[in-house]
Amino acid sequence: MKLLYPTSLALDVESLKGFAPSLHPYDVRQPIPDELTDAEIMITWCNSGDNLKDAAKKCKNLKWIQSLAAGPNDVLNAGFDKSVTVTTGSGLHDHTVAEHTLALLLNAARKFYEMRDYQLQGKWPQHLGGPQPDRPKGKFTSLRGANVTVWGFGNIAKTLTPHLLSLGANVRGIARSSGIRNGIEVYGEDKIGELLGETDALVMILPGSEATKHVLNKERLGMLPDHAWIVNVGRGTSIDEEALADALDAGKIGGAALDVFQKEPLPEGSRFWKTPNTIISPHAAGGRPQGSEELIAYNLRRFCAGQELKNVI
Amino acid sequence: MKLLYPTSLALDVESLKGFAPSLHPYDVRQPIPDELTDAEIMITWCNSGDNLKDAAKKCKNLKWIQSLAAGPNDVLNAGFDKSVTVTTGSGLHDHTVAEHTLALLLNAARKFYEMRDYQLQGKWPQHLGGPQPDRPKGKFTSLRGANVTVWGFGNIAKTLTPHLLSLGANVRGIARSSGIRNGIEVYGEDKIGELLGETDALVMILPGSEATKHVLNKERLGMLPDHAWIVNVGRGTSIDEEALADALDAGKIGGAALDVFQKEPLPEGSRFWKTPNTIISPHAAGGRPQGSEELIAYNLRRFCAGQELKNVI
Repeated sequence: MKLLYPTSLALDVESLKGFAPSLHPYDVRQPIPDELTDAEIMITWCNSGDNLKDAAKKCKNLKWIQSLAAGPNDVLNAGFDKSVTVTTGSGLHDHTVAEHTLALLLNAARKFYEMRDYQLQGKWPQHLGGPQPDRPKGKFTSLRGANVTVWGFGNIAKTLTPHLLSLGANVRGIARSSGIRNGIEVYGEDKIGELLGETDALVMILPGSEATKHVLNKERLGMLPDHAWIVNVGRGTSIDEEALADALDAGKIGGAALDVFQKEPLPEGSRFWKTPNTIISPHAAGGRPQGSEELIAYNLRRFCAGQELKNVI
Repeated sequence: MKLLYPTSLALDVESLKGFAPSLHPYDVRQPIPDELTDAEIMITWCNSGDNLKDAAKKCKNLKWIQSLAAGPNDVLNAGFDKSVTVTTGSGLHDHTVAEHTLALLLNAARKFYEMRDYQLQGKWPQHLGGPQPDRPKGKFTSLRGANVTVWGFGNIAKTLTPHLLSLGANVRGIARSSGIRNGIEVYGEDKIGELLGETDALVMILPGSEATKHVLNKERLGMLPDHAWIVNVGRGTSIDEEALADALDAGKIGGAALDVFQKEPLPEGSRFWKTPNTIISPHAAGGRPQGSEELIAYNLRRFCAGQELKNVI
């Protein structure tokens, strides 16, 4: 039994030994070599579309694909037989995305992007330093006492929120189902209007799907206070980008720190290059899976034992 | 008995009532009005040098000055009689400086300053996003697993370090006296060389004094790994700025996120405007005292009762 592992990231292969399958490296940007097309297990990370299509066509013994991505749309759309079990890398990106999200929130509150603009001109931004009012009403200047609403309340949100709480933020969640999760009050989508109206920073961590397309639209942007910031580390499709650019240009919103976009790389002609109070991060929140070997080894043992796998789609 | 309170910040004066002294507002940029020169208590915040000198000359009944600054060098140098008790605002800035320090560390690790440079040119910084190695050796790309050394281990450090720990950093301190403080191992200055050699990010929170002048000099900069970042939120005088600019220019250090400088505003001709991997923050970490009324009321009660005050210099 063969397991194919990708050379697109550094894996500690030694820690995957001791199970029945033999371990074989493969290049995620090339066709699957003939001698590996009988593999039963495939680990994927940043595979090219062609590689995946090739594997779907040739690897007829495949039983299980372990993606290291949180949302492996690439694998799901490559044409693999429906009998192939696909497991995600959910959990491998929690810490790194949470850290980046925290960094974006602080960048927005402390206005490092504006400081940088002054620095590049050799100018000291006096208005951003020295004595200043402490958390004036109608501004987002600190996480302390800020109302942070987290839309999409999965593992990343659960990793992020303790940091926000310890910095003094008031955190509430929005998700399909309401309830208390990890000590945070999570509201159903029927309460969105009420929550948005009381939000200083809206953190969006929604997956890309038809159900989440443009959920932050013109109407909902209008429910946010003029000073509210939006931080998006989920998927670009969840925001109506034209409506957001309009709101930024009109000063109807405090700002937007965006790590994801409908089209990436962000096209040359995008309005976001010029909208005020906009922080453009190049899909940098995740992309560094942590603990891949533990997840692979855990699922590999279960696979060998005929048990249910973790993170099955 | 009169207490003078400054109009240079919004104070909840109601919460200071109920004690013997009468409460009088004053302008920190003007001479003390004749009818207030018999005051016994003065609260200071961002007073002009002339105002303090004027008060030192005219207010001969002064017994106690409560500064809201953490390091009230201005009051100490204004010529007040030595019999006047001076108390500091130590503690009022812990949270806001800690938050800013965390933000600077994350800005350095996640390279938002470099992202901004690309954004201003309408360019997508592909090398900073997408799939990337997780915490490669010899780079500071995340607080998780990073060795953060905090030099100067007072209240701000004690407020900062729990956030660093919860994000996964390994934190050690340097201070005049060694020991375990708030769960962090703090080393004496005799161990500086050893600690600097293992540091990914050095956070400096030292007060300005003769003893701390240029403590980070050329020799000690040379002890840091080439990828190490320096974050200074204490006082600019603690760093030999020429030596730091040399190290930055030569790539002998990862970068520097500086909130304080020997001269502020940073002069037009400063090398730091042009040194690579430099984040210039305009003395913005503090400047927003939090909980001033609680400290004033606490000390006011003790003053009225003839008890020892808190934060006496």
